[in-house]
Amino acid sequence: MKSRTISELLSQDFVSSEVDIKGWVRTFRANRFIALNDGSTINNIQCVVDFETLDEALLKRITTGAAVHIKGDLVESQGKGQNVEIQVTSIHILGDSDPETYPIQPKKHSFEFLRENAHLRTRTNTFSAVMRLRSSLSFAIHKYFNENGFYYVHTPIITGSDAEGAGEMFRVTNLDAKKLPLNKEGNVDYSEDFFGKETNLTVSGQLEAETYAMSLGKVYTFGPTFRAENSNTSRHLAEFWMIEPEVAFMNLAGNMDLAEDFMKYVLKYILKNNHEDLEFLDKRLQDEDKTKPQNERNEMSLIEKLNFVTDNNFKRVSYTEAIDILRDSTPNKKKKFKYIIKDWGTDLQSEHERFLVEKHFKCPVILFDYPADIKAFYMRLNDDGKTVRAMDILFPGIGEIIGGAQREERLDVLKQRMAATNIPEEDLWWYLDLRKFGTAVHAGFGLGFERLVMFATGMSNIRDVIPFPRTPQNAEF
Amino acid sequence: MKSRTISELLSQDFVSSEVDIKGWVRTFRANRFIALNDGSTINNIQCVVDFETLDEALLKRITTGAAVHIKGDLVESQGKGQNVEIQVTSIHILGDSDPETYPIQPKKHSFEFLRENAHLRTRTNTFSAVMRLRSSLSFAIHKYFNENGFYYVHTPIITGSDAEGAGEMFRVTNLDAKKLPLNKEGNVDYSEDFFGKETNLTVSGQLEAETYAMSLGKVYTFGPTFRAENSNTSRHLAEFWMIEPEVAFMNLAGNMDLAEDFMKYVLKYILKNNHEDLEFLDKRLQDEDKTKPQNERNEMSLIEKLNFVTDNNFKRVSYTEAIDILRDSTPNKKKKFKYIIKDWGTDLQSEHERFLVEKHFKCPVILFDYPADIKAFYMRLNDDGKTVRAMDILFPGIGEIIGGAQREERLDVLKQRMAATNIPEEDLWWYLDLRKFGTAVHAGFGLGFERLVMFATGMSNIRDVIPFPRTPQNAEF
Repeated sequence: MKSRTISELLSQDFVSSEVDIKGWVRTFRANRFIALNDGSTINNIQCVVDFETLDEALLKRITTGAAVHIKGDLVESQGKGQNVEIQVTSIHILGDSDPETYPIQPKKHSFEFLRENAHLRTRTNTFSAVMRLRSSLSFAIHKYFNENGFYYVHTPIITGSDAEGAGEMFRVTNLDAKKLPLNKEGNVDYSEDFFGKETNLTVSGQLEAETYAMSLGKVYTFGPTFRAENSNTSRHLAEFWMIEPEVAFMNLAGNMDLAEDFMKYVLKYILKNNHEDLEFLDKRLQDEDKTKPQNERNEMSLIEKLNFVTDNNFKRVSYTEAIDILRDSTPNKKKKFKYIIKDWGTDLQSEHERFLVEKHFKCPVILFDYPADIKAFYMRLNDDGKTVRAMDILFPGIGEIIGGAQREERLDVLKQRMAATNIPEEDLWWYLDLRKFGTAVHAGFGLGFERLVMFATGMSNIRDVIPFPRTPQNAEF
Repeated sequence: MKSRTISELLSQDFVSSEVDIKGWVRTFRANRFIALNDGSTINNIQCVVDFETLDEALLKRITTGAAVHIKGDLVESQGKGQNVEIQVTSIHILGDSDPETYPIQPKKHSFEFLRENAHLRTRTNTFSAVMRLRSSLSFAIHKYFNENGFYYVHTPIITGSDAEGAGEMFRVTNLDAKKLPLNKEGNVDYSEDFFGKETNLTVSGQLEAETYAMSLGKVYTFGPTFRAENSNTSRHLAEFWMIEPEVAFMNLAGNMDLAEDFMKYVLKYILKNNHEDLEFLDKRLQDEDKTKPQNERNEMSLIEKLNFVTDNNFKRVSYTEAIDILRDSTPNKKKKFKYIIKDWGTDLQSEHERFLVEKHFKCPVILFDYPADIKAFYMRLNDDGKTVRAMDILFPGIGEIIGGAQREERLDVLKQRMAATNIPEEDLWWYLDLRKFGTAVHAGFGLGFERLVMFATGMSNIRDVIPFPRTPQNAEF
C-alpha cells in the first residue's frame, strides 16, 4: 500500500479505502482522536483509535509532536469539523516526543518564543502556512518570468564592486584575524586575501543583471542580498532575498506595465493555489485585530488586500503631483503626519505613501519621476535636469514594495552622475562598457521578497516570513 | 506596431507582415546583410538593407555590437541558411559600437579572453546558449519539485554554525579591520561583531533543510554555497549554487528513486525546450573534438550523453561490490589507473567512477553503503557498524554528480558520531532536537548546480557555466 500525504487523502477520493500515512501528532484528545499533520496542508486528518484494544503503554506515547505511522480505513466522518477520518487499524510510534520538554505545545505561543525555536516553528499552523506561501510565491515568480521569455541570472554574492552605495556592506575574508597582513601604510593588505582584494556581500544584483539584459534581452535575478545596517526593526533584515528583472529596449512606461502585470500574476497565483493557507492567515489576522483598539485595526482583511491589488489598475502619478496632493491633504494641514510635507525634493515616508494608496487614490499607486538628488546615480536623467525616471510602487498597509527605474544609457551623462556621487570610473569599467558598445534604453526594478511575503501573509514582523532571520546580534541556526 | 523578439518572428507565422525589431548586430556583410540577434534565441535574423538608398554615414555605423532598431517586411528568404528575412524599410542606430575597440569581434575568441570580458561574453553564441540552458535547467528544477509537492526553503547564507565540516569557510564580518576588538586572551572579540559572534558563509543548507523536512515533509533548497579552498582547477568555484532536497519518512531506496526521477526530468525538459541551443553546443563540441588526438575525444556527443541518462535505468551497486569490480578490472591490474585500488575503505576517484559508468555498466550508476570513515557524521549508520547509508550518483564524462544519504535519525547514535568527529553538541542543539522530538527516517541529496550545467552544455571549465565566477584571486565584476 503506497503511503499518501494528508493533502492527497483530503483532496482526492480515497473514501472507503485502506490508507497508510505518516505524520506528526498535533493533538490527542479523549484517548481517541489524533489530529495528524504531515506538512502537506494546513489541515490535519483525524485518526480515531480504539483505546480499549490499544496497549496502554502505546497510548501514552501518542503525544503532541510524536511521529507516527498509521494504517486504517478512510471513512466519512460522523463528527463535526471534518468530512473524512481514519479508523485506525494499526499505529506505530516512529519517534517519541516527551510532553514535559517538547517546546511546541498545543497552545498559543508568542512569535518571540517561536523565533527562538525557529527550527521547530513550522510545526505550528501559522508558520507552516507562511512558509508554504513563501514557497508558492517563489514558484509563481519563476513561472511568470519563464512564461514571458525572461532568463534567470545568478548574479554574484561575493563582490569586489563597492559601487552601488546602497548601504553598509559585510566584508568577506579568509585572512587570519589574529595576524592580518599590513601594507606599508599600516592598512590591511587585502592583496593577500582569498580574492586578492577587499570583497563584500552583494547589496544588489542589478548592475550585473544589466550586463545580461544587454545581451540576452530579458533577464531577472532572484537571490540573497545583504545590508550591514544596525536596524533592529520589524522591517529590516541583514540577509534577505531580492527579485530584480532587467529588460533591454524597455522604457519607464514598459517597466510600470511589467511590474503591475507581474505583481497581479503572483498574487492571483496564490489566491488560486493557496486558498486554505490564506483563509487560515486571514482569520488569524482578524482574530488578532479583535484584541486591538479600533483605530489600530486593519481596514481590509488579508484576502481583501490581495484582491485590492489584483482587481485595481495601478494609478500612475508623478512625484511632483504627489507632493502637491500631500501638501494640500488634511493630515498634512492638521499636522497628523509625523513628517510634514513642505518642499518639493523631500523623500516620502511610509505614512505619506499609505495615505496616497489607502485614502486618496484607493488603489495601488506608481509614483514616478523623482528628484535626482534622492535617487541612485544609474537612473535616467530627465530633460528637466532635476528629475530621474525612477518609479516606486506603493501598496496598502506597507507603502513602497517595488523600486525601479529606466537606466541612464548615455555614457557622458552616466559619467557625470558617477563623478557627482564620487564613484570612480575604474570601479565600474564594465558597467560603462555597456554604454560604450551597443547601448540602448533599458529598465528594471527590485522587489524585496520578504516585503512581498509579509504583504501576502499579513505577518507584521519580517523575521517571521524568512526561515532563519539574520539581524543584529542574531545568527542562530 | 508591437516590437517582437527574434524568437517570435522565427517561430511564428509573421511572413508577409510588417515587423518592428530591436537587437544587436552580430555581423554586417557586403554592405547588405545584417545578422541581428536579441538574445531570445541562438538564431540571428537576416535583415537586408538597400545600401544604394541608405545614407553612407549611417551604413558605416552598422558595426558588430551596435544596437539597432529595424522596421521592415518579413519575407521568405531567397538566400541559403534561413527561411525568412527582413527587407529593411528603416534602420535607426540606438547605440554605436566602435569596431576598433569593441572586444567581441566576429571571430573565435579564447574562453580565457571571454572570462576577462564576462560582462560581454553572452554576446557570443556559445555563452548565450550556455546561459539560456542554465536558466532553463533552473526552471525545470523548480517545476519538478513544485509538481511533486516539495516546498522551496531559503536556508541562511550567513551562518553561525561551523559544524558541517564540509570545507574551509569564508568569514563574514563588520568589524573595522584596522582596530579589531580583542578579548583578554588576545583573540578577536567577535561578541562585538554584527551578529555578536563569529559568522561564516554557508557550505550547505542541508542541516537547516532537515528542520523543515521534519515539519513540512518534502522540501528543497536552491541557493548559493561557498568554499574558501585554494583550488585553482576547472572543477572548483569559491561560490556556487546547490540544490538540496530533503524528505521526511523517506529511506535510501526512496532517495535513489527521487534522484533518478529528478535527473531524468530536468534533462528531458531541456531536450524538449532547448533543442536549438543544445544542437549548437553539440556541434561546437564535435568541432572541438576534431582538433584533439583520437584518445582525448568524447565517446558520446553531447546529446547522446543526455540521452544516455534519460534512457537508461540507473544501476544500483554497493560500494563493496564496486571495489571488487574495480580491483579485478583490467585498468587496475595493468596499472592504467592513476590511483590503484587495493583495499576496501579507500575513496573512489573520478577515473574509477567513470570506468564503472562508461566501461563496466554502460549506464548511470548509484553507489551506496559507503564506509562510514569517508562520509559525514549525519549519515545513517548501517547495522554492520562500518558502513553508512550514503549514495553517490555517477555520470559519464564527469563522475560523481550527486551525493546523498539517509540521515541518522537515532539520537544516541548521532551523538556518538558527533563525539567521534569532535563536533560539540551545543553547536547543533537544534539539529539534535529533531531527533528528540518526533524523529523519523529521512533522506536527501545535494546536487552542485554548476556540475549539472557543465554536464548539460558540454562545457569543460566550471568558470564558463556561471555568469561571474569567483575563484582564488578573482572577484571581478
